[in-house]
Amino acid sequence: MQSLPLGFRMTGLRCGIKPAADKLDLTLIVADEDATAAGVYTQNLVYAAPVAIDRERTPSRRARAVVVNSGNANACTGQRGLDDARRMAQVTAEAIGVEAEQVLVMSTGVIGQFLPMDKIEAGVRNAASQLGHTGEDFVLAARGICTTDKSHKIATREFQLAGRTVRIAGMAKGAGMIGPRMATMLAVIMTDARLEPIDAQYALSEAVNESFNCISVDGHMSTNDTVLLLASGAAMDEPLPSSEGFVFFRELRELCVELAKQIPDDGEGASHLMCIHVRGCISDADARRIAQTVAESPLVKTAVAGNDPNWGRIVSAAGYAGVSFDPDRLELRLNGTLLYRDGAPQPFDDPAVSRSMRESRETRIELNLHLGGAEANFWASDLTHEYVRINADYRT
Amino acid sequence: MQSLPLGFRMTGLRCGIKPAADKLDLTLIVADEDATAAGVYTQNLVYAAPVAIDRERTPSRRARAVVVNSGNANACTGQRGLDDARRMAQVTAEAIGVEAEQVLVMSTGVIGQFLPMDKIEAGVRNAASQLGHTGEDFVLAARGICTTDKSHKIATREFQLAGRTVRIAGMAKGAGMIGPRMATMLAVIMTDARLEPIDAQYALSEAVNESFNCISVDGHMSTNDTVLLLASGAAMDEPLPSSEGFVFFRELRELCVELAKQIPDDGEGASHLMCIHVRGCISDADARRIAQTVAESPLVKTAVAGNDPNWGRIVSAAGYAGVSFDPDRLELRLNGTLLYRDGAPQPFDDPAVSRSMRESRETRIELNLHLGGAEANFWASDLTHEYVRINADYRT
Repeated sequence: MQSLPLGFRMTGLRCGIKPAADKLDLTLIVADEDATAAGVYTQNLVYAAPVAIDRERTPSRRARAVVVNSGNANACTGQRGLDDARRMAQVTAEAIGVEAEQVLVMSTGVIGQFLPMDKIEAGVRNAASQLGHTGEDFVLAARGICTTDKSHKIATREFQLAGRTVRIAGMAKGAGMIGPRMATMLAVIMTDARLEPIDAQYALSEAVNESFNCISVDGHMSTNDTVLLLASGAAMDEPLPSSEGFVFFRELRELCVELAKQIPDDGEGASHLMCIHVRGCISDADARRIAQTVAESPLVKTAVAGNDPNWGRIVSAAGYAGVSFDPDRLELRLNGTLLYRDGAPQPFDDPAVSRSMRESRETRIELNLHLGGAEANFWASDLTHEYVRINADYRT
Repeated sequence: MQSLPLGFRMTGLRCGIKPAADKLDLTLIVADEDATAAGVYTQNLVYAAPVAIDRERTPSRRARAVVVNSGNANACTGQRGLDDARRMAQVTAEAIGVEAEQVLVMSTGVIGQFLPMDKIEAGVRNAASQLGHTGEDFVLAARGICTTDKSHKIATREFQLAGRTVRIAGMAKGAGMIGPRMATMLAVIMTDARLEPIDAQYALSEAVNESFNCISVDGHMSTNDTVLLLASGAAMDEPLPSSEGFVFFRELRELCVELAKQIPDDGEGASHLMCIHVRGCISDADARRIAQTVAESPLVKTAVAGNDPNWGRIVSAAGYAGVSFDPDRLELRLNGTLLYRDGAPQPFDDPAVSRSMRESRETRIELNLHLGGAEANFWASDLTHEYVRINADYRT
């Protein structure tokens, strides 16, 4: 692993929200000095209490901490949930000696239950005494935000910018999109670049749009989805000049894509990561819409789970995406093999394509509309027996 | 069963398209005289050859027959598919002594394979010699259009109109939305009311909008979806006066709802029929959009399969439907029990609600936005292991 961004300390630990004794469920990330913070949040009308708090507090130029609990989403909990989220920030602020408004909050897990505030308060105080800046501390923090994830999700970057070495490090969690079987998409990204709040917000929003907004496990939008960017500025004295902004943005976007892809790859029950690339479109929005429609079709997802090069399902999903195109110009490749062109099936070695699906974790679906120069990528889980088992089993 | 509409003869038989020796795969319905015909078709850009043919031929005042094959969708088959569909109409016309343009065609089953025209031609000739107008003939016809359906789907109505007894009889098939595991939504509705083509088309379009357009098995729009209405006029001498049109429309709509609900009830792997009723909306379109979003959420569908009164998934699905509402005014009932109101969970007997789900085929999900007077119904299958098994198993 590359070295972590300067100016942050962190840890993850168990405070007892989750039943399983070996699961971490609280993460604390602290910036040594005032940091720039930007946030991107769920677009669900029904959003959780911590989302309401963070929306008020970003963008900011004086953020000092992010406190995260897993195992309880603090969603659909009304005024008491809002009070609890504010209290979580307040307790964190007291433990590290900053103001409550400088603390951001995230929660993920069961919907509709109140936070066990005694456990969380004790956990926050413990965490504040265990902060560190090694790779081990980073991994503990990444583990503390997980729910049904099979493994923690991290990515790092190190590059030259304005004559300085700059670092970005991110952690994410995924699984299904929402609880009570405990999930939600959360990510925290840290950098030691010095960024103006408006630049940080713009860069984060754009990067999320091409990464975390282009993934799907089950298409169900969570009440808690949050991506935060914290910029300590510890790597440089002056804010990043605009001329260098694009380099930073490109690195941030690549890191976001790397993190985002890990979510459907570790989606509930997933046996394949579907990598969908749609090009030849009139607009990026058209390309995205087709890619997402293919990604979310249960028939495409079950076909991929069954290693079935079932091109009819893919072509027909594109056809109902709501984007205008000429079916006779549509071209489809699966794992590189041409399956459909000129409005008619193309002869192909069916068992060989099926074998290529069985032998690879990634299934590449490429559609070309041959209409224009716009394109989009989308990443999704397939749909397996295991997904149904995880989500249909009664909670008790 | 009530008596069938006057003026039609029909049958269903096996011509050998499907591998299983006990499955019917060809249906022929013939009107004794020129009939009014209306059609409603898939909105998929990628549509099958028979849809292209029928779109040219409806509405009409001189339709004479509908010929249907199951086991092969004749979709994504290019020019040869169009030629085959026209040939299917031509052979039917010759067998019953009418013009080819008076014959409508439907196909359902595997995508991307050419029709076995020798089998179909022989089947059509056989069918033309076996037509009848009894309940048994009606059931044979309803069986001939099925694919993975566990049972055939029929509904009938008989009522007084303009001083005459009028009948409507319909058949439908469903299962998953699309092949190669063979499916698609098809329906044929017959009546002996006398209707002008424009009235028939209007009544059918409206009725479909509140029935067949409000169901979902897996949300994947087929290349072949078709609903046809044939009106023989045999029950009356003059076209139906406008003043009586509403009575006919109401009966047609109820019959369509009765038929349509049978499709998700018999959806691939379904263990529950989800009946979703959304009211208190500003517009019917808003209500429909929320109902459909809830119906298509894999997390809601798996929760219902698991008899889990998981209100968080339902409330959050409503929240991402793209309709503006106040979450604090949202009210949710499941099988009649209040679960969510005033932005907070309501205390309820969780095991009792779960038991009510386990003991009933239908799960009633009622949402009230408390904003206006508009409402909508939607019917959907739940999502089970069996759905994944049916759709993930490799075709060979």
